[in-house]
Amino acid sequence: MGLVVQKYGGSSVADAEGIKRVAKRIVDAKKNGHQVVVVVSAMGDTTDELIDLAGQVSPIPAGREFDMLLTAGERISMALLAMAIKNLGHNAQSFTGSQAGVITDSVHNKARIIDVTPGRIRTALDEGNIAIVAGFQGVSQDKKDITTLGRGGSDTTAVALAAALDAEVCEIYTDVDGVFTADPRVVAKAQKIDWISFGDMLELASSGSKVLLHRCVEYARRYNIPIHVRSSFSGLPGTWVSNEPRGDRKVEQAIISGVAHDTSEAKITVVGVPDKPGEAATIFRAIADNEINIDMIVQNVSAASTGLTDISFTLPKTEGRKAIDALERLKSSIGFDSLRYDDQIGKISLVGAGMKTNPGVTAGFFEALANAGVNIELISTSEIRISVVTRADEVTEAVRAVHTAFGLDSDSDEAVVYGGTGR
Amino acid sequence: MGLVVQKYGGSSVADAEGIKRVAKRIVDAKKNGHQVVVVVSAMGDTTDELIDLAGQVSPIPAGREFDMLLTAGERISMALLAMAIKNLGHNAQSFTGSQAGVITDSVHNKARIIDVTPGRIRTALDEGNIAIVAGFQGVSQDKKDITTLGRGGSDTTAVALAAALDAEVCEIYTDVDGVFTADPRVVAKAQKIDWISFGDMLELASSGSKVLLHRCVEYARRYNIPIHVRSSFSGLPGTWVSNEPRGDRKVEQAIISGVAHDTSEAKITVVGVPDKPGEAATIFRAIADNEINIDMIVQNVSAASTGLTDISFTLPKTEGRKAIDALERLKSSIGFDSLRYDDQIGKISLVGAGMKTNPGVTAGFFEALANAGVNIELISTSEIRISVVTRADEVTEAVRAVHTAFGLDSDSDEAVVYGGTGR
Repeated sequence: MGLVVQKYGGSSVADAEGIKRVAKRIVDAKKNGHQVVVVVSAMGDTTDELIDLAGQVSPIPAGREFDMLLTAGERISMALLAMAIKNLGHNAQSFTGSQAGVITDSVHNKARIIDVTPGRIRTALDEGNIAIVAGFQGVSQDKKDITTLGRGGSDTTAVALAAALDAEVCEIYTDVDGVFTADPRVVAKAQKIDWISFGDMLELASSGSKVLLHRCVEYARRYNIPIHVRSSFSGLPGTWVSNEPRGDRKVEQAIISGVAHDTSEAKITVVGVPDKPGEAATIFRAIADNEINIDMIVQNVSAASTGLTDISFTLPKTEGRKAIDALERLKSSIGFDSLRYDDQIGKISLVGAGMKTNPGVTAGFFEALANAGVNIELISTSEIRISVVTRADEVTEAVRAVHTAFGLDSDSDEAVVYGGTGR
Repeated sequence: MGLVVQKYGGSSVADAEGIKRVAKRIVDAKKNGHQVVVVVSAMGDTTDELIDLAGQVSPIPAGREFDMLLTAGERISMALLAMAIKNLGHNAQSFTGSQAGVITDSVHNKARIIDVTPGRIRTALDEGNIAIVAGFQGVSQDKKDITTLGRGGSDTTAVALAAALDAEVCEIYTDVDGVFTADPRVVAKAQKIDWISFGDMLELASSGSKVLLHRCVEYARRYNIPIHVRSSFSGLPGTWVSNEPRGDRKVEQAIISGVAHDTSEAKITVVGVPDKPGEAATIFRAIADNEINIDMIVQNVSAASTGLTDISFTLPKTEGRKAIDALERLKSSIGFDSLRYDDQIGKISLVGAGMKTNPGVTAGFFEALANAGVNIELISTSEIRISVVTRADEVTEAVRAVHTAFGLDSDSDEAVVYGGTGR
């Protein structure tokens, strides 16, 4: 039996009862002969409460101090978890990100992990301890300041530690039973996926699936660390994410992993752009300089009569204001006509390996949407994904239609097991 | 203008408003040309809430993890305070005890400071920052684990930093206006003391005065760091504690500093101890081995007829159970008759330099108690203090009588200014 890294999110350790339940699960893994490293998030709403406090003393909290503040949350949960484990008769020690050797760059509030030097964790394990590590945090390489890793940071901490410690598996415990073929709140017949490749999981994550974040999966793929996403409430086997297929998954099986959707994006159209070299570059350089991540891009075929074209792209709604402002400043230098902003869009994506080599998939996807009366506004494809933009209020219908058309519906009519309180 | 260390307790930073008020006071000191280092406690009831949480997951929280848990409290308050200062347009950086170089031994929950290496604080100051330091915490020299300093730990952190940084003064901000000639809640005519020597302050602290703890004053005396205890609410000058008299204090002035009282102790009497060498040593070795601090000790004159004597001593009520258990185990080996436990006692102490050389003080003290009808059960004296034990319900009357007899009453009938919410 080797080393296992387990990660528990805030909803799993929301109160004393949750902490005791998680402690029992951890001790079970230890009893099964594993060395166990646990990464834990802050309890329930702690982080939100701290953010609220910060807002009360300062409208624009400083990065360094904001990180110092937020990391108090994991400090509380990890110490309590270690106490709860000791109370079950097993040795446990808690470690801050800094003590665990999580070295980051100096970009406060969204630091990147540069290196992991888990010497103290290794020693604690060798001495028979269960090691509890604060998720979401590290220490900057140059200034030795406390940093936080931003959204999905605790999952990334877990995968990074698993890589540095050469763990057998990184178990991500959450409040759902795993990754599903579609969002079970939208598609009642969605099925839990037993195994999915890193590549497909990355596409699902960047297409709106919220169970695992892109960043964490990317890290796991780079170091080839199998992830097992599962419920801390039900204890059932969840979804394995890895390079190698597991279990009875056959090569002949359907290549489609699932349907993802996303209604958090908006669409900006730059109308009447002169169709000459460099104009698109100018637009997207301005967007990039404002650190706005864009998703899909479509350029219309230029109308020969005017020499003008339209360029559309999608981006997170939260970045909409910033993008419009940046583009307005360029209006005279580029000479476009106008900007259109539309936040009533939705995106539906079908993800599965080998899609490009199977033309039937794309055709089937469009047919399913057409049969459901859903109009397509933008299209984007990759090796293993096809995405379309539609009206936001057509997303639910579109997801269900595609899920059924590709044979992903379960035989059962029952809603899937949901262990937690949702999030 | 030199370097000032300011310490703010939990009641001064109990909420966002408190933090903003304290931030303003700190910025004022900076504007006056000082380099400012601030030591801050956890907000209001944070520590109690964390202790409560720990109790919910484990009946006997482990020392190392308990310290990890509690230090989250200062992490929150110091980060918020730094943000509030930045919001006023001044640079501030917060530092954990470990980052500030507070090196301790490894005795969790009540660690002792071994060394202070404030290199990062010095750098932050030289770069024009106000440095905010977490009180009450440090890092252990051998294991690099997070430790806490126990009761009064934040005051001690402040004095230790003041010593290491060669500060002009260590300002202890609290919710009262300073040190008084008696507890103003008991003696309405008690007066604020403008200056008091380290020696007298130490005696007051060990006799029940709660404004400054013995440990912090001891540290300040060793490194000769003047302490200025004052209110964070009123902003008035408070009480200076130092070696050299300040202001218009004249050498001829009354030698009496004040009257302290304490109702937190209990009395144990070991009845019928054989009066032979080594018996008292056996008793107090057993007490010491259980790490119980005792206060007064009185041994009766042995009755010649029996060869037996009684030994009485006082100790914190909280240690009563432990002491009785330890002594019961010795009963057969020592051969005493019985144990008597009495927790309805009070202690009244009169403190002032040169008391021993002024026999009128002792006489006046006993006369004042006699006139008030207060019976004396135990007596203990030092160079600058005389203490008696009485019934607990006579303490208030006794303190008032002594305060009046030694001319400490103020001319005003008004209650003294109380800035805060009390604690």
